Amino acid sequence: MRFALKVSYDGTLFEGWQIQPNGRTVQGELEKAASNVFGVPVKITGSGRTDAGVHAEGQVCMFDAQTTIPAAKLRECFNRLLPADVRVLKSVCAPQSFDCTRGAKRKTYRYTAYYAESDLPLLSRYAARIGQKPNLQKMRAEAELIAGEHDFKAFCASGSSAKTSVRTVYSAEVSEKKENGYLLYTVTVCGNGFLYNMVRIIAGHLFAVGCGVKEEKSVLAAFETGKRSLLGKTMPPQGLTLAGVEYGDPLFSADGR
Amino acid sequence: MRFALKVSYDGTLFEGWQIQPNGRTVQGELEKAASNVFGVPVKITGSGRTDAGVHAEGQVCMFDAQTTIPAAKLRECFNRLLPADVRVLKSVCAPQSFDCTRGAKRKTYRYTAYYAESDLPLLSRYAARIGQKPNLQKMRAEAELIAGEHDFKAFCASGSSAKTSVRTVYSAEVSEKKENGYLLYTVTVCGNGFLYNMVRIIAGHLFAVGCGVKEEKSVLAAFETGKRSLLGKTMPPQGLTLAGVEYGDPLFSADGR
Repeated sequence: MRFALKVSYDGTLFEGWQIQPNGRTVQGELEKAASNVFGVPVKITGSGRTDAGVHAEGQVCMFDAQTTIPAAKLRECFNRLLPADVRVLKSVCAPQSFDCTRGAKRKTYRYTAYYAESDLPLLSRYAARIGQKPNLQKMRAEAELIAGEHDFKAFCASGSSAKTSVRTVYSAEVSEKKENGYLLYTVTVCGNGFLYNMVRIIAGHLFAVGCGVKEEKSVLAAFETGKRSLLGKTMPPQGLTLAGVEYGDPLFSADGR
Repeated sequence: MRFALKVSYDGTLFEGWQIQPNGRTVQGELEKAASNVFGVPVKITGSGRTDAGVHAEGQVCMFDAQTTIPAAKLRECFNRLLPADVRVLKSVCAPQSFDCTRGAKRKTYRYTAYYAESDLPLLSRYAARIGQKPNLQKMRAEAELIAGEHDFKAFCASGSSAKTSVRTVYSAEVSEKKENGYLLYTVTVCGNGFLYNMVRIIAGHLFAVGCGVKEEKSVLAAFETGKRSLLGKTMPPQGLTLAGVEYGDPLFSADGR
């Protein structure tokens, strides 16, 4: 029987999703819990990796197991064994044909940053600080150019093993919220898949354009030439959250996250 | 010369505000930084204590020092020396008559909680989870009864040394926000002063009334009798944030926090 889990984690104290011989990973903690629940070693496959320090509200993963425990009860069984910074939000039965990696149709990432004079200790775990106030209109105009099917070679950290760097970004949106003493920025990017560091480079480029560090429309030359240097800096991991993964058939009820 | 600081901290890894012989405290870290900045031991006085695990966006403290460093520059001097979970947001010169403890006219605290089926790792550092969905109207009606001048004896953890338990709550407000997969509740309480654990008991009582654990208007009998047992449970510290402290004369510019 195949099961799928929707998982949330605080990435701060993890060396990322993917299991490692040394180092605390989300996949490692989930496999440890699963092996305890089922009494045999269980391999867990994620929709994709997240880097060290990156968070998730709605990572999806799957595994095969023989059990009489009802699928919906597995959530509690896992949560009793998991450390407090990882939680299973939903557990469901999935068809044998379900592939949580290749079957992922849309992924949504959210990048959060704030502009303030000082670092703000209550934000810094889940957001990056930007030292200049960006121009929202410029950021939004540049984000519109990023949406669509493009060769995102320039948005990829070196060392990527992806076969093709063509991806479709369904939407890239920027919001600004005035809070007491600081401005909060959210860059939400939805696409059919992302290259290594792609969302952090998209966010970094939008902030660079908004702050006048990179020229408006410079993303167009980056698409043409594939040159990483035409884009802004890669943003740090703590501002990034994998908000959700969608499949052809809805795996989780609409109210779930 | 007297200086005042507006300070923010993540209370998670502190044994509270007040300095202790053993244990990491906010006051202790600030005094350590101040002693380094000025080269002599400096005593720092806060507007009041916060408990272990309680956060602050706008704690205010003061100290006396002889220095040629401009007051506005002290912020950076402190921040270079402080650990990442405490930051000075503003540093200003204060009149010798300024008393940050007795001069505090209004304090605002915010209590944050969420209702969800599972613990949510990305919320649990700064919010408490409630296991039942509360009725917002009931919470708001009870909050209205709390506003005003009352004897808050029943809202005080045992062991308090306050001379009087009469306090004025200027406002007690409850907001509800529907997020993807959870409901977020904020209880904001503004008053002329608070007894030990008073805000956490106010929040706990409002959630208890909202969830039907305590009867509506039970706060009236608690005011009359002073009986702690008539009220809901004390909420855990991680949901509480000291949002700000106000004085007769505005110490910090209106945009600052």
